[in-house]
Parts: sequence; structure tokens; C-alpha cells
Amino acid sequence: MPVTDRGAAVAPAIPAFDRPADNRRLLLTQRPAGHPLPADLVRDVVPRPSAGEGQLLVRNLYLSADPVQRGWAVSLPLGSVMRALAVGIVIETRHPAYAEGDLVYGFFGWQDYAVAVPGDILSHVPSPRLPASAYAGAAGMTGVTAWLALSGIAPPRAGQTVLVTTAAGGVGSIVGQLVARTGATAIGLTGSDDKVRRCIDRFGYAAAADYHVDDVGALLDGLAPDGFDTFFDNTGGPLLDHAIRRMRPRGRIIQCGTAATPSWSPPPAGWRNEREVLTRQLTWSGFVIFDHADEFPGAVEALTDLVLADELRFDEDIDQGFDAVAGSLDAVFRGVNRGKKLVFIGADRTH
Amino acid sequence: MPVTDRGAAVAPAIPAFDRPADNRRLLLTQRPAGHPLPADLVRDVVPRPSAGEGQLLVRNLYLSADPVQRGWAVSLPLGSVMRALAVGIVIETRHPAYAEGDLVYGFFGWQDYAVAVPGDILSHVPSPRLPASAYAGAAGMTGVTAWLALSGIAPPRAGQTVLVTTAAGGVGSIVGQLVARTGATAIGLTGSDDKVRRCIDRFGYAAAADYHVDDVGALLDGLAPDGFDTFFDNTGGPLLDHAIRRMRPRGRIIQCGTAATPSWSPPPAGWRNEREVLTRQLTWSGFVIFDHADEFPGAVEALTDLVLADELRFDEDIDQGFDAVAGSLDAVFRGVNRGKKLVFIGADRTH
Repeated sequence: MPVTDRGAAVAPAIPAFDRPADNRRLLLTQRPAGHPLPADLVRDVVPRPSAGEGQLLVRNLYLSADPVQRGWAVSLPLGSVMRALAVGIVIETRHPAYAEGDLVYGFFGWQDYAVAVPGDILSHVPSPRLPASAYAGAAGMTGVTAWLALSGIAPPRAGQTVLVTTAAGGVGSIVGQLVARTGATAIGLTGSDDKVRRCIDRFGYAAAADYHVDDVGALLDGLAPDGFDTFFDNTGGPLLDHAIRRMRPRGRIIQCGTAATPSWSPPPAGWRNEREVLTRQLTWSGFVIFDHADEFPGAVEALTDLVLADELRFDEDIDQGFDAVAGSLDAVFRGVNRGKKLVFIGADRTH
Repeated sequence: MPVTDRGAAVAPAIPAFDRPADNRRLLLTQRPAGHPLPADLVRDVVPRPSAGEGQLLVRNLYLSADPVQRGWAVSLPLGSVMRALAVGIVIETRHPAYAEGDLVYGFFGWQDYAVAVPGDILSHVPSPRLPASAYAGAAGMTGVTAWLALSGIAPPRAGQTVLVTTAAGGVGSIVGQLVARTGATAIGLTGSDDKVRRCIDRFGYAAAADYHVDDVGALLDGLAPDGFDTFFDNTGGPLLDHAIRRMRPRGRIIQCGTAATPSWSPPPAGWRNEREVLTRQLTWSGFVIFDHADEFPGAVEALTDLVLADELRFDEDIDQGFDAVAGSLDAVFRGVNRGKKLVFIGADRTH
């Protein structure tokens, strides 16, 4: 598996890329049952577009596969290019704030080229200090989500215990390290023995466990007999139901994802949790990164500093070539990726 | 029904009371199925106790019936005096901070006399400015809960829409008026046409409705087509499930009670709500008044000022005599009370 372990040995690099005359695209052509699978997508090829007034033309290099795309696929008009984040390079600009050659990260879709306006862009990095791919991961949506959700909702303090679901994932792998830096104890739940090991060996977790057990409650009791001050939850579902019953008084829950539940229509059933909110005096907050665009650049810089100081590790799982894109999200939902799942599409027709 | 509508025409008054030589008590003798009923309680009579060093002897005047007692009855040791709030008068003191004749409000139990220490006392009012009964209602737990939960978690702002459950109840009747004072719109759910009228006529609600309908979602859509900024929830259950799906982005839920669900063991099932927390970026907070003892006196003074300025109305539903105590909580849970349910027991053996 093409996994790159990133630690201190990172150097800024924009890979060589081609500029073909046509634009490969993946269109969402049927409504997925759950997350988009290759059968829900149709590939087409159209001429390379151009930037209009106030626009940029971006050559996408790294297409990103993120769980949030499952939600996007529910409402995206059928026939549209699959909504996706990507890291690319500005190759034409008709906007004064952007120069040719600038690295950008934003909503560029699963395609070779995107015509973008500033509102599509999450990061604009004229002088990258990290490899280009990092701006879609540790210094992209996943890292920034970890940083802003934790610092904005429940900054950990020394002595506290923080539970994290999908602990080895793009967000969770950063959360564990940010928690550990404060002197708090990070406890992770993840989906395999290998991921448990990576949580402990690489991502700052004091303890971690595979949640595939009969008695999740007993598992949590064993991991943290005194319960949790903060729960950084990326899954919802039964893990949430058990964890909320082990929160300490005035604890905080950050709801950052609901990966455990494939469909919300009709509303699925579970344990009622409002009494836990009441009697434990919890504060349970939702966090959606896309409503924090103003804070994005500052978080990217802070995360970049940590990576360059060798204080933040991240893993990338980068496939090569456009043929790998359609199945990339399924790999994420099956949990077989080992690090931020990206597909490099910048040179597969010339190399 | 012995209801007193309190508005501007209030005057401080401590009613005449007797000091019998014995102490009538209601003991919890079996674990209730739900809230305590008369069959769960046994009345006994013991000699009047005395205050020890550092203690007070309180003559209870108004015994309070509050939904929170349902929860207390789950863990109270069988054979104990039923835990309850009450307003009383200090008739013996061996504590330097309390004088004979002081009005006190606290955890004095369903009995004539309580031996109390300062930790049992929520309010100590040497010079009452309101009728004694008010210190168990609008200036007691219910009023202070409304005041502190609203101001501490989600202070309303002009233009906002605030949904309140049990809107005509002890807490809800104050919440509606506090919301309306800010220029926000209070919308109430309650259990009868009479209560709907009182919400609108007396308690500041711009609109209110009986929640006993087939389609709660459609009811809420009609009351507030644009949804809710804040939800002050005293019930949980299906009303919560429908309301949370109509919260505006970054809305706030104050979980102040869970009256709709009679038992939490085993956990009852309902709609999963974590996706609403996430996608609407809600903040859902539990509020338990007993963890805010430090803030209690300030809130009592603020509420007293509002009452005396004729800016806060409250209703009291006061039964007379110790025989009425055992059934008082059932009346609250059946919703047949019209205002704060109290029982005056201070003079039923001498008047």
C-alpha cells in the first residue's frame, strides 16, 4: 500500500505535472445508497476550460477522498462533477490576488481542471513550506478540523481524558497528538489492530482499542475507569451512546462526524441521550469546518509550524492516476486506507 | 382550584404558623414506578427535633412538589423522609449566620420540621420582599433555573425565536417572560387549552400550542416557519426530536428537564440526533440548578426586583394541610396544577 509516513523529514515540493488539453471528470450520475461507489459515477472527457474574469484555472494535482462527500452526494444535482476537495496549482489567473504557480486547496471536484473563484478556495499558499499533498491533509481540512474544533470547543487541559473515535483517521490522528501536547490523555477507538498500534506509536494516544467488541461499555470502562472530560466524536451511533454514559460532569462532546450511520432518512433509532446531557451537564457541540473559512489560514500556519518542528506526524495514503479516484472513497469507508487518502492525478498521462 | 395569580400586588408576608411538639413526616418506603405516589409513602410522627451545634431548626411552611423529585426517588434510601424543597422559618439557631425568624428555602423534606446545616439551604432571606411562598417558585428553584439557564447558556437577543416546552410550568412561565423582555419571540408548547391561554395572556409567549397533536412537526412548522434559535427544553422525548430538526444553524438547546420519559433504565429508544447537532452546528447543554448554588442569591434578588416592578408574573397553586402533600407531585406530573404547586402545612393543626 502506497503509504508515506510524514514526520520531520518533509520538504516543500510541488510535483511535476502535465497540462493536457482535455479535462477528465467524474460525474455523479445516480444517487448513492450510502457513500458514492464507482457504479454511481461516470467518467467523461471535455476540453480544458479557461478562466473568465475574476476566475482562476486550477490544475488539480491531488484529489481528496473525504467522508463528508457522502453527505454532499445526497444533494448534489445528478450529472454534476463529484464535489471534492483537491490541491492544485493556479495555471491561469484573472484575479489579482492569485498568481500563476500558486498552490491552492479547495472545492475543485474530481477532475483534472477546475475553474475556481475565491469562494471555492480554503487555502491559498503562494510559498508552500510543506509538500503539496500535506495541504489536503495535516494542513488541510482534516488537520484544520482537528485544530479548530479542539481549540474552539474544548481546549484540553493537563490531567483531562479525551476520547476520540476514528482515532487513526485524518482528523483523529491529529487530535491525538494535539491532545497529548497539552498534557491531557488521549484515548482512541479505531477499527483494526494495525490502527491501534499506529494510534499509540505515532499519534500520541496513551491507549487505543479496536471497537469491534461485544461490550463497548466494558471496553470504555477498561480504557478510562474515571470516564471522559471530552469526547471528540467522528462516528456517532452506538459508540456515542456508550461514551456519553461515561462522560464526567460538565464534559464536552465535539460532534465532528457521524460516520457510523449510513443514512439519516428516515431518522434511525438509538438510545435517548438527552438525560445524559442534562444530568451530567454536558455541552455537546457540532463542528462543521466549512463554516470556519476565516480561521482556516491561521490554522494552516500553526499546523505547518508543528510539522516543521517535528511535533506533528501524519500519514498519507496516495494512489496514482485518475483510474484510482472512483474507488478511493469506498476505501475510506471500508477503513482500509492508512493515512489521508489522496490520488495524484497530475502526471498519469505523461509519466 | 386554589390558585393565586401573582402580579404587582404582592407584599412581603410570613403567614402565621404553629409550633407543634411533634413532627409529621412522609417517608419513601417503596421505589416508585415513575414518580412517587401516595402508595409509595408512609406518614409517621416523631418528636420535634432540636438543632445541634452549627445547625438550625426550621419550621417548614410551604412544602414544594417538583418534577426533580422523580429522580431523587430513584436513589433515596428507602425509609428516608422524602427529599423535597420547602420554605420555612428558622425557629432555633446554633449557627451564627442565621437568626431566629429568618426565612430559608432549601432541602428540608416533606415534614413539619427540618434540622438543617448551611449546605441544605439555597436561599437565606432575613428581610423578605415577597410573600414567603414566592421563594419556592418565581424566586425559588423554578424562577432561578429559568434565570440562570437562560442567561448562562443562551441569552436571548431581539429578533430571535425561542421554543419552550412545559411553557406554562414553573420554569417555562418565567422563561417566556424573560425571553419576551429581550425582544425575542417566545413560542410555547404545553398540555391544555387553558395553559395555552395562560402562556399567551400572562407569560409573554407570542404563540403557544397544545402538543397533543398527531403531527408535532407540522405544529412546529406552523408556529415558527423559520425554525428556532434557542430551545429551552424541559421534556425531551419526541418533542425534542421534532424540535431539534427545526433548529437554525448554530442554535442552542438548553436541556433543563426530561419530563417526557418516565424511566431511563434501560435506556429508551428514540430518533438519533447527533447528525442534527453536527450539521446545524448546535450547542446542546444540560443545566442542573443545584450545581449553581453560588449564583442562587443574585438570581433571587434579580427576580424579586422584576416581580416588584410588575415585570414578572407568576402563578401559585397552593393546597392546604399536610394531607395534601403525598398527592401533590402526582398532580404536577398529570399537569393539573395551575402554577407552582405548594402545600401550606404551617397551621393546619391550629387553624
